[in-house]
Amino acid sequence: MELAPQQLMKFANDEGLGKRTWAIAEGYIPKDDRRKDRSMISHETACILNTSDHQAQIEIMIFFSDREPAGPFRVTVEPRRTFHLRFNDLRDPEPVPRDTDYSSVIESDVPIVVQHTRLDTRNAEHALMTTIPFAA
Amino acid sequence: MELAPQQLMKFANDEGLGKRTWAIAEGYIPKDDRRKDRSMISHETACILNTSDHQAQIEIMIFFSDREPAGPFRVTVEPRRTFHLRFNDLRDPEPVPRDTDYSSVIESDVPIVVQHTRLDTRNAEHALMTTIPFAA
Amino acid sequence: MELAPQQLMKFANDEGLGKRTWAIAEGYIPKDDRRKDRSMISHETACILNTSDHQAQIEIMIFFSDREPAGPFRVTVEPRRTFHLRFNDLRDPEPVPRDTDYSSVIESDVPIVVQHTRLDTRNAEHALMTTIPFAA
Amino acid sequence: MELAPQQLMKFANDEGLGKRTWAIAEGYIPKDDRRKDRSMISHETACILNTSDHQAQIEIMIFFSDREPAGPFRVTVEPRRTFHLRFNDLRDPEPVPRDTDYSSVIESDVPIVVQHTRLDTRNAEHALMTTIPFAA
Repeated sequence: MELAPQQLMKFANDEGLGKRTWAIAEGYIPKDDRRKDRSMISHETACILNTSDHQAQIEIMIFFSDREPAGPFRVTVEPRRTFHLRFNDLRDPEPVPRDTDYSSVIESDVPIVVQHTRLDTRNAEHALMTTIPFAA
Repeated sequence: MELAPQQLMKFANDEGLGKRTWAIAEGYIPKDDRRKDRSMISHETACILNTSDHQAQIEIMIFFSDREPAGPFRVTVEPRRTFHLRFNDLRDPEPVPRDTDYSSVIESDVPIVVQHTRLDTRNAEHALMTTIPFAA
Repeated sequence: MELAPQQLMKFANDEGLGKRTWAIAEGYIPKDDRRKDRSMISHETACILNTSDHQAQIEIMIFFSDREPAGPFRVTVEPRRTFHLRFNDLRDPEPVPRDTDYSSVIESDVPIVVQHTRLDTRNAEHALMTTIPFAA
Repeated sequence: MELAPQQLMKFANDEGLGKRTWAIAEGYIPKDDRRKDRSMISHETACILNTSDHQAQIEIMIFFSDREPAGPFRVTVEPRRTFHLRFNDLRDPEPVPRDTDYSSVIESDVPIVVQHTRLDTRNAEHALMTTIPFAA
């Protein structure tokens, strides 16, 4: 029998681990459609960890250099789950434009932990970068 | 009609998200002029997100290993906008020297979120790195 | 004679440096078995530094997108030692699945410092990324 | 005439920006002697920014997986200067071994800002990673 994490870990409580507001100032999805393998297509990811026992209702706003922000994009992350959200996959209310500088703000109704990663496969070889974003 | 983010997001208030002082201890622009495509020229970027409803007046000082700091470089970021500032593009009061170790301190009159990214294309393939800087 | 660090450093005290709970929202081990050299096989690492004078008893939980968390995985880090833990090497209670999104939470009974690094060698050339995780 | 930064910047005061203790849990210098160009030899760097008006007296301890820590390594960073310290260059009391996992703790008598960067040129193409370390 698999135990829920709150029975195993010292941090565990109903509240969950993390912060409710995160900001990723970097954002850029290369215009790169040559790759067919989803794992190797250039992408920007916000990895979202919800250690709490509640579903996380999340709203994302995308900020641009030359127009008003877009959003809110809405995603949910189930209790005790991680969701590696690709900005490439956002469609509603609009797709994230390629080859365009942006930033994002991620807000959740329960504490979450976010990490930002980019895979860039514009060249034959790929490049990676990651960071913890700003948490408020 | 597009709504301003303060009508959409829970974090929103007149103050904005982030901190007023950021420091990036790493800094190095490779001497690399072979690339013609702006998106692929080696560069150092400070991605600056201003979620507030006020223009951000920003001053940047560049610190070197062997001389007094240069600056202030002045940039503005409009309300609810992001600006991916390339250190390569700074010209006034002086350009940032290539092939030279530096650090930077970024100060704003309203809270901002900053992220540091380098694209290095000295070789045929490119390398990326990013981090959130120190915030005070 | 080599002195223990608490005799040398100003930070030193019985408590050690760092935090007791860390969360790494990113996690992904590529399915890559072509490399024979251990140093160049694609891997995810949690570098764990224990500056204290006590053995660190550490429990790790792995979170997935589609099932309950796995763990606890248990490791110990000796006093005044670092341990670069490869998630690839975890076996008990189960291996970390390849080609699968995950997150991790690391808890210690003494303060530790954690850093997350991935080496990705799916292509001929390799990519690296690192970040400090979220600390609670 | 070039002004010292405290005459220009709002953060400026005698104290300087940052923290006095930093810990980098990741550390690994590849065994790579094929490169002749110093800028492209694989290296680990601690970029150290001293915005204060005082010389920073810095002590570094290196932690290993299987023996007592080495150090202190002593460096100084002049007022209003940055120093991109390569761990490769440390010699006293001993060199940092290659192909060996390590961690480091950096302590200063005045506040400093530190950033950790690795350039890895084991392959034909190079990889980069950077992060802000843990600050106490």
